[in-house]
Amino acid sequence: MAETLFSKIISGQIPSFKIYEDDDVFSFLDINPVAPGHTLVVPKEPAQTLDQLSEKSAAALGRVLPKLCRAVMKATGTRSYNVLQNNGIGAHQAVFHVHFHIIPKPDSEQGLGIKWPIKPLDPQTGPTLASQIREALES
Amino acid sequence: MAETLFSKIISGQIPSFKIYEDDDVFSFLDINPVAPGHTLVVPKEPAQTLDQLSEKSAAALGRVLPKLCRAVMKATGTRSYNVLQNNGIGAHQAVFHVHFHIIPKPDSEQGLGIKWPIKPLDPQTGPTLASQIREALES
Repeated sequence: MAETLFSKIISGQIPSFKIYEDDDVFSFLDINPVAPGHTLVVPKEPAQTLDQLSEKSAAALGRVLPKLCRAVMKATGTRSYNVLQNNGIGAHQAVFHVHFHIIPKPDSEQGLGIKWPIKPLDPQTGPTLASQIREALES
Repeated sequence: MAETLFSKIISGQIPSFKIYEDDDVFSFLDINPVAPGHTLVVPKEPAQTLDQLSEKSAAALGRVLPKLCRAVMKATGTRSYNVLQNNGIGAHQAVFHVHFHIIPKPDSEQGLGIKWPIKPLDPQTGPTLASQIREALES
């Protein structure tokens, strides 16, 4: 995979406000925060999207999220927060190296704004769709 | 912790369109999808928010996300998607049992809509904030 901004941050070629590092994971402040304390958590493995990430890296990343969330909330004094991970240009991904955002939500103006266009699940469609996803999971 | 809609789905008291289950994780279709294939992934451990979840459950949840994302994308034929996990009423959490949303983004109308009110990180504030989060992480 080509180098990205984040692979250069992990290797130290580009400086960052570092929060945490272990064998598989690196974490640092987002330099374009949507709220104070907006933190990025990335695998060292250079996968572009979450579906391409190894189970080992994904597990390591999952494992550290709770303590990183606790630390961000404690340091910022925030109670509510969102964890967001975007995949693909259509879904707001800007850097093509997997990253989880930890985004404090101190008030309605700051943090992640969400538009949520729900349409109740069609009872006819539900079983078919669930079955198709289960089949895809097994293939 | 009090029972929630999701603890009742995990135990089978309330039916769901199930996608996946292992010792630590349960996954099913959201009945109020924002796009076809909108899937929920929850730990069996009854934590309210991600910061309260054990490392074991968080790692197990992280581990299965890549393959669940691949299956949802394959079954829906979508390329872009968001993974979202909300904590606290202020951050759009509606059921107080940790859950990750896998949300296909087939077009601009469906899926997760994002408002992203960035303010570039103040070079003076960055080092202080990173230091405070690192201290909170160690305490």
